[in-house]
Amino acid sequence: MYEFIDKIESPNDIKNLNENQLEKLCREIRECLINTVSDCGGHLASNLGVVELTVALHRTLDAPNDKIVWDVGHQSYVHKILTGRLNRLNTLRSDGGLSGFCSPEESEYDVCQTGHSSTSVSMALGLAQAREIRGKDYKVCAVIGDGAFTGGLAFEAINNAGASKTKMMIILNDNEMSIDENVGSFSKFLAKARTSQKYTASKKKVSMALLKYQHGGKTAVNFIHNIKNRIKNFVAPNLFFEELGITYLGPVDGHSIKDMEELFERAVNYDGPVMVHVLTKKGRGYLPAEESPQKYHGVAPFERESGLKAESSNSYSKVFGNALCTIAEKNKRVAAITPAMQSGSGLSTFANKFPERFYDVGIAESHAVTFAAGLARGKIIPVVSVYSSFLQRGYDNVIHDVCIDNNHVVFAIDRAGLVPHDGVTHQGVFDVSYLGAIPNMKILAPSSYFELEKMLEYALNEQKGPIAIRYPRGKEEMSISNGDFTLSKASIVKKGKNITLVGTGSAVALCCDAADILAENGISAEVIDVRTIKPLDFDTIFGSAKKTGVVISVEENIRRGGVGEIIACEAKLRNIDVKIEIKAVEDEFIQHASLNSLREKFGFLPEQIASDAERMLKE
Amino acid sequence: MYEFIDKIESPNDIKNLNENQLEKLCREIRECLINTVSDCGGHLASNLGVVELTVALHRTLDAPNDKIVWDVGHQSYVHKILTGRLNRLNTLRSDGGLSGFCSPEESEYDVCQTGHSSTSVSMALGLAQAREIRGKDYKVCAVIGDGAFTGGLAFEAINNAGASKTKMMIILNDNEMSIDENVGSFSKFLAKARTSQKYTASKKKVSMALLKYQHGGKTAVNFIHNIKNRIKNFVAPNLFFEELGITYLGPVDGHSIKDMEELFERAVNYDGPVMVHVLTKKGRGYLPAEESPQKYHGVAPFERESGLKAESSNSYSKVFGNALCTIAEKNKRVAAITPAMQSGSGLSTFANKFPERFYDVGIAESHAVTFAAGLARGKIIPVVSVYSSFLQRGYDNVIHDVCIDNNHVVFAIDRAGLVPHDGVTHQGVFDVSYLGAIPNMKILAPSSYFELEKMLEYALNEQKGPIAIRYPRGKEEMSISNGDFTLSKASIVKKGKNITLVGTGSAVALCCDAADILAENGISAEVIDVRTIKPLDFDTIFGSAKKTGVVISVEENIRRGGVGEIIACEAKLRNIDVKIEIKAVEDEFIQHASLNSLREKFGFLPEQIASDAERMLKE
Repeated sequence: MYEFIDKIESPNDIKNLNENQLEKLCREIRECLINTVSDCGGHLASNLGVVELTVALHRTLDAPNDKIVWDVGHQSYVHKILTGRLNRLNTLRSDGGLSGFCSPEESEYDVCQTGHSSTSVSMALGLAQAREIRGKDYKVCAVIGDGAFTGGLAFEAINNAGASKTKMMIILNDNEMSIDENVGSFSKFLAKARTSQKYTASKKKVSMALLKYQHGGKTAVNFIHNIKNRIKNFVAPNLFFEELGITYLGPVDGHSIKDMEELFERAVNYDGPVMVHVLTKKGRGYLPAEESPQKYHGVAPFERESGLKAESSNSYSKVFGNALCTIAEKNKRVAAITPAMQSGSGLSTFANKFPERFYDVGIAESHAVTFAAGLARGKIIPVVSVYSSFLQRGYDNVIHDVCIDNNHVVFAIDRAGLVPHDGVTHQGVFDVSYLGAIPNMKILAPSSYFELEKMLEYALNEQKGPIAIRYPRGKEEMSISNGDFTLSKASIVKKGKNITLVGTGSAVALCCDAADILAENGISAEVIDVRTIKPLDFDTIFGSAKKTGVVISVEENIRRGGVGEIIACEAKLRNIDVKIEIKAVEDEFIQHASLNSLREKFGFLPEQIASDAERMLKE
Repeated sequence: MYEFIDKIESPNDIKNLNENQLEKLCREIRECLINTVSDCGGHLASNLGVVELTVALHRTLDAPNDKIVWDVGHQSYVHKILTGRLNRLNTLRSDGGLSGFCSPEESEYDVCQTGHSSTSVSMALGLAQAREIRGKDYKVCAVIGDGAFTGGLAFEAINNAGASKTKMMIILNDNEMSIDENVGSFSKFLAKARTSQKYTASKKKVSMALLKYQHGGKTAVNFIHNIKNRIKNFVAPNLFFEELGITYLGPVDGHSIKDMEELFERAVNYDGPVMVHVLTKKGRGYLPAEESPQKYHGVAPFERESGLKAESSNSYSKVFGNALCTIAEKNKRVAAITPAMQSGSGLSTFANKFPERFYDVGIAESHAVTFAAGLARGKIIPVVSVYSSFLQRGYDNVIHDVCIDNNHVVFAIDRAGLVPHDGVTHQGVFDVSYLGAIPNMKILAPSSYFELEKMLEYALNEQKGPIAIRYPRGKEEMSISNGDFTLSKASIVKKGKNITLVGTGSAVALCCDAADILAENGISAEVIDVRTIKPLDFDTIFGSAKKTGVVISVEENIRRGGVGEIIACEAKLRNIDVKIEIKAVEDEFIQHASLNSLREKFGFLPEQIASDAERMLKE
């Protein structure tokens, strides 16, 4: 089907192509990316942006002996095509298919499993130092986006890489974006580097450019003033990174393979850490994506010709965003913080309506949390809107800065529970455990949009200390609208007498469906919606348990430290005579698959719950 | 007793002192610091270094209306003296006494409870933005040490503060140290700023200095080359921070109140974020501390005249450090990483013996963990040596970078369990919970030096994936040396038949002592040393439980997600007929106090365990 990429078994196959052939190769790769992603969904804009970069990199390096660490890894599709995975590309993000990120389990060309941002320089530095200890001579390269550079981890790594003097290449893939637009002063600084630097990496040229200025005929002080500004503009990125011990080369056109190869060649052979500043355009080659790279960051399947349709259907994220606006309209002390996930978290309306109370802090989860604590000490009520798996990056900030002082910070935890296609790094299955251990923290889990609205209202207007609301990715699976929310009060969604099904969050709908199946078989199941995970409403749960004598608890969280474990433990301590089974995520990492497959794996499907219930009743 | 400080009730009382009086005031403060800390222990060198800085700051600002955020907070003793707490200073770090860090519970002058590093700029930015939202006009100042600047959180905050353009002052207290000497390229950069910049903050002077250079009579290119270097040296810190949107002033002598006040005055009135670079000397005014600031960072009581005695007695940290050296001697792939805690973690000998395999990454826990993952991917076996409460800062790195790929990284978790005098921010009581939830992770807890040695050997030489060994601050409380360590095998330390006492780590000694008390009353207790927290040896525990019918589990970790909860839960699920009680840290934050008081609070003392055992047997 394709002239070039069909034949690629390893990066060696692109090393002898001429300029003309390379151009065709890149065209084919883009073609393939657009076809694949419009078919099966995934990350588009970022991959279209790094076609030439990836080609140039693989022509310069000798992978897998040399190590390429892709930051985040969502831009690794081109790398997958060039490393013999084209024939499986149409399985991206599906059950048993290719991961949407890097994965050593699928290829020796992938150095590590990734998915979170800003880790690549630390990882590459580790690989480089391991090389020194073991006396090896492979080359190491980290490819990191400018968006990922707002994460403090990248700075910690640069600080250590600079001091180490070890040989490694860091490619700063500067596309002027994280998922949303970049924020923070560092990105403004890069912007200046982009616009004021037309040279490619030759320091001699800088000197020459400066030279012109000394014959300007201005007064001495003006001359100095000007030359200072000129030098500032010219040497800024050099200076910035070189002060940190990193040799800086660039910026270079990220769509010119030839220019990049020239620089990469120098960089990988330089005896110390080097940063190459590469300018790329997200979405390059597919007009809709060039124009709206945010929209085409991560996408569902779409019609290639017409492009993405506007997402009109509702979701927990949207309900959260709208509810927050309604509350903030009245309560002027409410503010919102997002670590670079404005659109994903449903906060775009809030950002437009209340810009003076909206903070996109960039990819900087630790800061997001501690900054929220600061706002709270200043008598503002901040909502930190964050994906479950990313809040892990602010764990100490939650403990040290928010909870110890019992600060009134609300955590709106999106993508909690199973997150199907993004896979292992994005599963939101730890938050109940890691937050549950923290004193002063309260945790809520809505089973419907209505509950989310009620909980948010409670958390902002009635609560005083730290409180987290965890809700799943996507849509509600049942619609509950029975009355008000009261902290630490579970609600009995369905009365029954033979067995108690305890559902947490998204699992309530599954339990209700299971109850319907059981009803058909003449078994009357009572369904409890936990609502407040911490503190848990033992009275309601054990009240039902004593009546039925049999309990199944279902939750989309890891078993250890989850709701089921707490119920079983407490039942033992209180010596309550009841049979209990726990359905939770078991002690293993969960790869990408459909939500249904993942649920089936852990026995969460209604028919599985029902059949286990029947078994327990027979035992 | 003192002429000046005895009279100070609030910072207002130092605002009208003249230069001569201020000098005497500072002398008294130092006198008082040395007396207090030599009496009751605490942080000395850092406080001696900030005497004039604190005085100048309180004279410039109007606290508590204006907000001063002390990073870490161990340097806040002078601030405590100036804010009416002199009369309680001799209660520092003791039961019910003053905290060794900042604490809003003890004074309205303390903005937030602290203890961990690098949070102050985020916190101050939050306070500043809250001021904007609420239309208030208080001033905000963060005081952050150069050591804390290696933490990525500080960079994330600077990135946001710079972009915000909000009015706030950041004092960079540059004493050229964290607890150990600073590492990383950022500190080298600051060092250059210190030595090459003799001016105090006037940009005009920079221009003038540059001016001299244009009449040098050199060739044009040389001229440019020179001026570039000069400008680099002169404007580097300006440029570095100003590129990030922060106006830079300094460096200024941190022991000249007059010079600092002049700068602080300008800085707090500047309409945007300003950094003032202040040079201080740790230990200033007490010769032994000036000479060995590391030694006098945090100290036990000592003789003022003779200074600190060399610490000769053994500790878990030392045993760890020595055992690691022994293992690394034979196993050349073993490397060690510390986030700025070389001496505290017992790694000084290792650092000397194996410099090519030793990495002090600075205060940068996230990087420490991800860097370790990189080393592991490069076939090195890294030990991350870190205090329990600080590992919270690398939580996502443990999940995302170490555990998902099942990397062989060993976590040597020091200060796990109750940490008496450092107080609430230093308690190592969450690690069992937050690590226990992570797939692939294994967790060990030694009850003696011997076990620590055996476990370390196992973890490095026999284990393949991530594994953590948690051990307490200080000394072993019993000496066990019975045979080899086997993963997930508990050991029965003492045979008995009436009750089972399950001890984890440091609690094993307490259980043994309790068993002795019980024996005197004719009760035969079986004591189990858990050894492996994850995976737990249910066979041994329930084997004993079935025999005795009564179990008490004791552990220095928070109850939620701890060993006791896991045992009780599993007993319920397996329907084992046994009475269980859990002794763990309850769901609250724990302030500073003696180890004995803390243990008493949670019923961990042997006599408490014994009396609860008797009660349970009677019930």
